[in-house]
Formats: sequence, C-alpha cells, structure tokens
Amino acid sequence: MNKWFKWACFALLIIFISETKAQEKVTVGEKQILFSKILKENREIWVHLPKTYDDNSISPAKYPVIYLLDGENNFEYYAGMTDFLSRPPYADLPECIVVGIKNTERTRDLTPTKSQKKSPVNPNLILFADSGGSENFRSFIQKELKPFIRKQYRTQEYSVLVGHSFGGLFAIHDFLTHPDDFNAYVANDPSLWWDHKILISKTRDYLEKNKKFPAKKSLYVSQADNEEQQKNWNSDMTQAINEFRTIVEQNGTLNYKHTFFKGEVHGTVSYPGNYEALKFIFNGFRTNIKEFAKSPEQLEEKYKTFSDTIGAEFIPSESYLNIIIKFMKNNEFKNAETYFMNLKNKLYPDIQ
Amino acid sequence: MNKWFKWACFALLIIFISETKAQEKVTVGEKQILFSKILKENREIWVHLPKTYDDNSISPAKYPVIYLLDGENNFEYYAGMTDFLSRPPYADLPECIVVGIKNTERTRDLTPTKSQKKSPVNPNLILFADSGGSENFRSFIQKELKPFIRKQYRTQEYSVLVGHSFGGLFAIHDFLTHPDDFNAYVANDPSLWWDHKILISKTRDYLEKNKKFPAKKSLYVSQADNEEQQKNWNSDMTQAINEFRTIVEQNGTLNYKHTFFKGEVHGTVSYPGNYEALKFIFNGFRTNIKEFAKSPEQLEEKYKTFSDTIGAEFIPSESYLNIIIKFMKNNEFKNAETYFMNLKNKLYPDIQ
Repeated sequence: MNKWFKWACFALLIIFISETKAQEKVTVGEKQILFSKILKENREIWVHLPKTYDDNSISPAKYPVIYLLDGENNFEYYAGMTDFLSRPPYADLPECIVVGIKNTERTRDLTPTKSQKKSPVNPNLILFADSGGSENFRSFIQKELKPFIRKQYRTQEYSVLVGHSFGGLFAIHDFLTHPDDFNAYVANDPSLWWDHKILISKTRDYLEKNKKFPAKKSLYVSQADNEEQQKNWNSDMTQAINEFRTIVEQNGTLNYKHTFFKGEVHGTVSYPGNYEALKFIFNGFRTNIKEFAKSPEQLEEKYKTFSDTIGAEFIPSESYLNIIIKFMKNNEFKNAETYFMNLKNKLYPDIQ
Repeated sequence: MNKWFKWACFALLIIFISETKAQEKVTVGEKQILFSKILKENREIWVHLPKTYDDNSISPAKYPVIYLLDGENNFEYYAGMTDFLSRPPYADLPECIVVGIKNTERTRDLTPTKSQKKSPVNPNLILFADSGGSENFRSFIQKELKPFIRKQYRTQEYSVLVGHSFGGLFAIHDFLTHPDDFNAYVANDPSLWWDHKILISKTRDYLEKNKKFPAKKSLYVSQADNEEQQKNWNSDMTQAINEFRTIVEQNGTLNYKHTFFKGEVHGTVSYPGNYEALKFIFNGFRTNIKEFAKSPEQLEEKYKTFSDTIGAEFIPSESYLNIIIKFMKNNEFKNAETYFMNLKNKLYPDIQ
C-alpha cells in the first residue's frame, strides 16, 4: 500500500509538472459554478478579468461589469474585443469584467411570456412549451449573480446587459420592466415578434405611463439583413424591430442607436453589433494623449463630461495615468509630467 | 525523508486537484517554444485550434493557417474572431488555425533595411539601430516555423500573413519579394514611410520586371485616420500608403482591397481592419443552407467557384455537411437529405 501510494504520488507529480510546464495555455477566463435558489439549479458562469486586474504595480482598481447572455457562444471573442477596445492610450472604453452566463433552459429563461406555437413543419410538435421564465431569470441575475460577482471581484457600479435573439428580447423586456437593472442594454436582432409582438404593446404601455424613457440609459439594437426570414414563419421579426425603432426614436429621450447590418444574417449580426454597441455606449471615453501636453487639465474635464453623459463616475485609471506620465517624460513635457504625477497622487494616494 | 516525501506528494495532490477542478479555465490557445537556428534564439508561438479540431465524431480535418505577427498583442481577439466568423451554417470563412508569433526584437525582425534615425526629441538617441533583419525573420517563418506547424498540426496548404505597422511593412515586403510565401497578405496601417519609402520603389521595380501582380493572391490594406501623425516626424505615413494604393489600383490585377477607417488611429485600426480583411479574403465562402433544399448540387458548385477564385481547393467540411443533413432531415427535405448523405460518404469515406 505504502509503495503503491508512493508510485501514485510520483505519477501525479509527473502529470502535474507536464501539465503546468510543457503546454502553457492562453486563457481568457475562469469558469465558476453558482447554485441558484431561485432557479433551483447550478449555473455555470464564465468570468473574464481585464489585463490590469492582477497588476501589483497599481492600486487595486474596480471595473464595470458586462453581463453576456448565451455565454458559451460569445465569451471568447467578446473578452478579446473588450480587452482590445480598452487598451490605452487610445481606449474606446474602460477596462471591463465580462461575465458570460451559460444556458441551461434557454427558451425558459429568456422569454417573457408563455407562448406556444405549432411547428410549421410538423404540427404534432409544440414549440416553446417551456417559455415564459424571464422574470425568474432576471431575479437570478439581480439577486444571486450580481451579488456573487460583487463579492468575488472588484466591481464598479456600472453594468451592461448584452443579448442576441431571445437574449435581445430578454434585454429589451428587462429595460422596459426594470430600467434600473443595468446602465446600458444591448439587443442584437431581438426576437420582438415574440407572442404577437407583446413587447411592442409593453413599450407603448411604458410610454403611456412614464411619458419618457429614463435619461442617462443607453440602448443599442442591431438588426440583421434577414431577407430569408421574410419568407418563413417568423416573418414578423423585421416588422417588429422596425415598429420598436419608430416608437423609441419618436420619443427621443433615450440614448438609443439602431443599426441595420447589410449582408449579416440573424446568426452573424451579433459580432459587428457587439463591436458597435461598445463604441456607442462608451462614446466620449476616448481621449487624445497628445492634447494633454499643453493643456493637462483637459484630462479630468473630459472624464467629467463623460461621467455626466453616461450617468456614472469614471476617473482616469492608474495604468492610463502611468502611460501619460511616461509619455510626458519621454517627450520632455516637464510641466505636464508634474501635473499628472500630482493628479496620480491625488487620485491614487495609496501607493505614493 | 520518507515522511517528508509523502507529505510533499500529498500537498501536490491537493494542488493538482484544486487546479484541475475548482477553477476550470476558458482557453483559446497553447504556447509552444521553438528554437530557431536562423535567428539563434528561442521563439514563443501561440497556437489556436478551431472548435472541430479534436472532434472525434468527424474524420480528422485539415485547416488553413493564419500567421499573426505581434502575437502577444492580437492573439486572443483574433482567435475569437476567426472562430465566430467560421461558425456554420453562415460561416464567412473556413475554420482556421491561428499561429501568433511573439516578438523578441521587433524592429530587427520586421524591417527590410537598415535605416537609422535621430530621435526628433533627443538627437543623442538613435532610433531603429537594430533594424534590417526581415529577410532573416522571413526565413525563420518559411524554413522553420511553417515546417514545425505542419508537423505538429493538421494543416491545409493555404496560409495568410497578418501584420500591423512594422508588421504591415513586413507583410508588404514579403509579398513583393516572395509572393508565393502566402496566399493572402494583410497589412494594417503599414509603415510604408520606412527608409525613404523604400517599398514604394520596390513596388515600382516589381511591376517593371513582372508587369503584373500575381493572380489569385489577395492583399488587404487598412489605413488609420492618423490626423495627428500628419503633424509630426513620420508625416510621410499617410502619403506612402496612398502612393502604394495608387500604384496597385492602377495595375489592377491583384485581388486588392484598401479601407480608410475614419476615427481609428494607428493603434486601434488593426481590429476593424482584421475583421474586414478576413471577410474580404474569403469573400464567396458563405453559402445559404436554405437554397440547398431544392438544388443540393449548388453546394459543390459554390465551393468549386470559390476554390477557383481563391486559387486553392476547398471542400465542404464534414461538420458543415452534418449540419446540412440535420437541417434537411428536420425540415423533411428527403431528396436533399439523401443527396447530402451521399456527398458526405463520397467526401469522407472513412467513417461511413
């Protein structure tokens, strides 16, 4: 037994060394399991942390969080996209934590009402029998997932919800029923045809009751070039999205952008949609490092304007300040260098 | 000693279990080290394999390879981008292996000539002292890296080179001096200002000697909106790219696309550039699954046309055929289902 144990340990040692050494992996996230009391099941969550998250040379920072539906389909490219777009000095957005939510019962979780349909091909087949659970799924996100993420990671109180198809339906429904859940909502080719276009009625109801959409909230909708879909059973897809667009644009108060992507179909539109959505939501975040040589006070002014527009406080990150200071030093802009050293000490006093 | 060994093994066991179980990672690639006799140094390579690479339910397939310069800056998002764009049934490109090459001496490897410059800020500082090694680096890629990748992975004889800035300079130089190295070349905001625009002269020389650019080769160039750069020392950046564009477009034979990205600067243009480049290079690859219900023979015809255009043979992948067969079955297109079953057995006889 003793000998056996030794050999087993030796074998494990070899496996361990070979696993850790020979084939180092490029990783973009970690998987977490969270038991949901609300949904009565385990949920798998994929979490991407930005590059500076574990950088010991700066003070521990807090990051906005992007909640990504259909996590298993979108996580890898989305993580890479946010990293690229948040890279200083020409960052289009702050560095973000991305939380991908993996599906279990997708139709149940993402649809707002129970609505069944006979399959157009086989009438014996009932489609969407398990629909109508989105309020429950929303509770899971707000009451279980968000607290879990806040507890495990350093998060800033700014969050975005991103969905596609039924996920886009969920995002717009969440926006209409709980507009304070997120600061921004992204709906790629949302299934607004759902249940006799029930969200179109809900949008009208919302405006009748509230008159205006909430200020300082963003909603981005991408629309695919679904020529094919005009011809089949969910032909009201395009029509419903256009109706929604008309209502929202007529009302005018919302920070809303709608893009029709020529040549992209329902299954491909979310990639360019997500790229454009990020640029839209964080529009005004990008600054020009060269401008600060002569007027360094502009940095804080730009962040103030951006924060006012977006409705949440954003300050220059310590890593960006380090890049600015290095730039001023290398180019011998002494005054600006001193200015930004002082600003860094003011904003991040911990590591003076 | 014996006791100590047992405890050490026990500790390792715990680490091993916790590493493998508690925190499963989302990975997009594996790192490899390759000693280059030509460069006399170790080179780190990051390799991304497509989703179906290890799918045991299909015959082992071969994949085109994309060689990505500045691997450490682009690998994660690029891997995710190719995965998304090659997802059936609406794939814009075949699934690809992505090989990211990490830099050691970037300026040495990516510049074609020795060209020094006094720093405009500090004249005592000589810039680019170690430039001019691109022919050596090209030999490393062709004679060492490509054989290494071919040996380790199942590759198809179709390859793409992707570079940005000095990497774009390298890509265009490689295209002009060794047009058979790759099937397609991508140059994002290439540094064509290098060494008194030496590549402009080389482009003219190439055309004087060969009259035409090679057929069935693709070259994509993205150009940033570098307003700032007009004002400083490398103001010939934009001018050189425009000159190159004029020469290539006037000649006309090359499958060439040039895009100017408004609002994108030198550091941000490679992301949208790479997205558009992939769509351009593989233009014609996307097929419409719904069309094949009534005329199934169109699938092979479309692949034949695409292969002729691109100058390399591409056939429908087994995983795509499986999706088509499932679609025909679910929608009760019996004839098409049989047709594609037969096609699959013809193209992939191993697993009949």
